[in-house]
Parts: sequence; C-alpha cells; structure tokens
Amino acid sequence: MVDTDLPSYDFLNHLADAASAAILPHFRKRLDVESKTEGDFDPVTAADRNAEAAIRRLITEHFPDHGIVGEEFGNERADARDVWVIDPIDGTRAFIAGIPVWGVLIGLRREGYPVLGMMAQPFTGERFYGNGADAWYRGPDGQSRPMTTRACASLEGATMFTTSPALYQPGEERDAYDRLERSVRLSRYGVDCYAFAMVADGHVDLTVEPGLQPYDIVALIPVVEGAGGQVTSWEGGSAAEGGNVVASGDSRMHKAALEILSGIA
Amino acid sequence: MVDTDLPSYDFLNHLADAASAAILPHFRKRLDVESKTEGDFDPVTAADRNAEAAIRRLITEHFPDHGIVGEEFGNERADARDVWVIDPIDGTRAFIAGIPVWGVLIGLRREGYPVLGMMAQPFTGERFYGNGADAWYRGPDGQSRPMTTRACASLEGATMFTTSPALYQPGEERDAYDRLERSVRLSRYGVDCYAFAMVADGHVDLTVEPGLQPYDIVALIPVVEGAGGQVTSWEGGSAAEGGNVVASGDSRMHKAALEILSGIA
Repeated sequence: MVDTDLPSYDFLNHLADAASAAILPHFRKRLDVESKTEGDFDPVTAADRNAEAAIRRLITEHFPDHGIVGEEFGNERADARDVWVIDPIDGTRAFIAGIPVWGVLIGLRREGYPVLGMMAQPFTGERFYGNGADAWYRGPDGQSRPMTTRACASLEGATMFTTSPALYQPGEERDAYDRLERSVRLSRYGVDCYAFAMVADGHVDLTVEPGLQPYDIVALIPVVEGAGGQVTSWEGGSAAEGGNVVASGDSRMHKAALEILSGIA
Repeated sequence: MVDTDLPSYDFLNHLADAASAAILPHFRKRLDVESKTEGDFDPVTAADRNAEAAIRRLITEHFPDHGIVGEEFGNERADARDVWVIDPIDGTRAFIAGIPVWGVLIGLRREGYPVLGMMAQPFTGERFYGNGADAWYRGPDGQSRPMTTRACASLEGATMFTTSPALYQPGEERDAYDRLERSVRLSRYGVDCYAFAMVADGHVDLTVEPGLQPYDIVALIPVVEGAGGQVTSWEGGSAAEGGNVVASGDSRMHKAALEILSGIA
C-alpha cells in the first residue's frame, strides 16, 4: 500500500534535473580528483558536491521539515518522519573513468522504510523510479513505461551482477559470494547502481553487493520492489541501512540466493 | 602517415548507422538468447546477425574487392589487400544485461595493419573513430571533437580496466595480470570495448585483455593510436591478430606495463 501523501514523481524528476545540471558539465572533463579518505581511493568531484547541494536546497525549500542524509554533507534532521537519503554520484569510479553507468540516487525513507526512489543517469538521460507498488522507466526520448522484473525460478538460469569480487571481506563473506557466483549462469562485474536498475527492468536477475551505505541502496529499494522484485540483507532482513545486500527479480531465486549467502532457507 | 585512399569516416558512420538501426530494436527486449558454443556461455542475438549482415552488404556494395572478417559470418576474401574486421556487438554479455557499454566494432586492415576503425555505441549515440594519425569523438548531439589520450607517466597513477580477472588463464597469465593490478592506482572491471574508447578519450590510462579475437581489437587500434596511445601484445608486438592485448595512453606507462606482463623492458 502506498501512502497517499508521498512527494510526487514530478518532484523526484525535479531533483534529478537539478542534479543532472550540476553534474553533466563535469562528466569527462579532465578534473583533478580529491581523495576523501587518506590512503583509500574514494574520489569526490566538484560535480558530487554541487549536485548534492542542489538537491538539498530543493528539498529544504519544498519540505522544510523533512530530514536529509547525504554522502557529501552528512545528516540534517535525521530523526524526522520523512528522511531523504541521497548519493549524488553513485559509482564515482565509473564517473571518473568516463563510463556512463554511474547514477544519481534519490530516496525517501518514511519511519525508516524506503517508500520512494529514483536512479537517474544524466548522460544517457534515463530515469528509473518507483514507490514500492509501481516502478517506471523514462527513456532518453522522455517517454515513460512501467517496469517489471523478469521470472527466473532458479540460480542456474540467473544473470548476476556485483561491482567487484575484491570488495568482499576475505574469509566467510568472500567465500559466500564465490559460492553464489558458481551457482549462477552468468556473472558480470562493475556497474554499481545501474545493475539494480536492470534487475527492476527485467534484464538482470540478481545483484549482490557487500558493505553498502544507506545512501547506496535506499533509493533503489522502492524501484526494485515496485517492479515486483525484492531487496534484502543477506540474512533476509531490511536493506534500508545498507550493509550486505541482495536484490532479485524473482522471490524463488531470492530464497535460493539467501540460502547460499547466509545459510538461511 | 595516413594512406590517402582510405575509405572515409563518412563511410564508417554509414556502416555504423546501418548496424545501429539493425541492433537498437533488440536492445532491452526480452529475447531468447541462443548459445553459440555448447557448454560455454556465448550469446548471439538476432541483433548481432542482422547488424553484421547489414555492414557486409554495404561493404560489398561500395568496395567489392575488399575482404571481410566478421564474428558471425566468417571470412570472405580474407587475403585481399584491404580487409574489414567487424564485431557487430562487442560485449554481448553487457548487451543482454541491458548495460550500454557494448559497441559496434568496425575496423579496416590494410596489408595486415589496422589503418581505420570505429567503435559505435548505438544506445548513447556515441562514435569513437580514428585512422592511427587522428581520432575523433562524435557525441549524442552529433558534434565531433578530436580525442587525445592523457599523460600518465607511471603505473602508480594509472586507472586500469579489464573485462574480468576470471578470463585470464590460471597460472602465469593470471599471475601477470594480478601483478599489474597491484601496481596501478585503481582498477575496474566489466566494460569490453568501451574501456579502449576511454583510453583514447583520456579518461582511462590502461586497458588490458586476454585472449582477444582479431574482431575484438582491430577496430580499436587506429582509434587509440590516432589519439596518441599505443596498443600492443603483452610482448610489445602487433595486436592486429588479437591475443593478449594492452592499450595505454602514455608510452612510458606502456613500457612499465609490458615489463610486468611479460618481463620485457
């Protein structure tokens, strides 16, 4: 059931338009990249900061009592009933390499539950959005159509994505991932949020990621769920706080993936 | 030095237009995928075959004495002075997963040497093309600009791409790749021909791949070289027959990569 007083998809598009305008002039420019974390490569660009500032301004203007959690500028009113959770550029490594598989993630958590979300790809002009009950694709031509996940009963037939096997902690976590990879038909690496969008749109069956932040996943949950899929922790619980996450288009296969990832049947 | 009687960039664009028209109606359609090789996942789509047929028709019409080597329909007049080497969809796994990092590869080999090439991405509308002396990017807006690789003196500062570490043969080959990955600043997986285009356009420093076919690489060599980069085998020889290939934007770093990959200084 969808709350009737949610912000509209038009408002999500308005936020994504502002973010896109802030980001696109910087895409494929040969920028110097600051390193956010000493000794660990985590690029932040001017685009990232400008986009998050633009999104925050619009939210504060239209919904002054809403909270905001963002990758770049931290938390504001994070205990509000409605909290926006945003990552202006998910996939910064793809961004700096010029590959258009990064995205603007804009999600809304109500009482802790992700209820509205959008992934926008400014270079291709694509938008993927949903509210847990329905989900939509808007293409480069501006036309929208509903999205539905595809049926895939078992892992043997599944196409799976993960950003990189190297991101899993050596030991139990990496072993669990490797078991899952061996169980699927086809695995591919390297596309961050875009892989979740492709689960929602029925081109990929399964996406699994370790160690996500809330802003990496909150926006994507209402999109995948709205298209008929599932997003949970590896133990089958809520993915709204990030952590180790699995998204799939078919609940039968989701169950099989959880069994392999955490021994939960 | 560029031969004055090469086919024009306009003709390359004409071929890419025909391929795009054949492919795009199939992108993100929920097609059944045939398996080309028993027991080994190598998808071929209707798009792949239609696009190669369209390209072959145009080549035969305009240059009846030229040879053609293609992934889908094999060789014709492969001993001609001018031989086109084409892969209608490089990155079929990305294609079937809906990720727009596959490309149409159209290359021309003259007396065995790659002299003209284009990578087209029909969904984004991008074209990357060159003749070994110059290289160009045509964006979704139809505007063209020259491409140049970026300076990167050493591996320590390099961003590197490979499709997947799992594609390297266990043992010496995989060990060589792993050593290279440990030497670079940042590595990413998963984008096939798009990574070579990003080397040419100066967003990526190094792309390394194992076991390529000629049609995977011939089209990309004149693009990367035309932008000021290098494409060779791991031993520093010609990459025109495929095999283990490394492409880079800076000759100093290329030398360092060869040293790690094959012990050649």
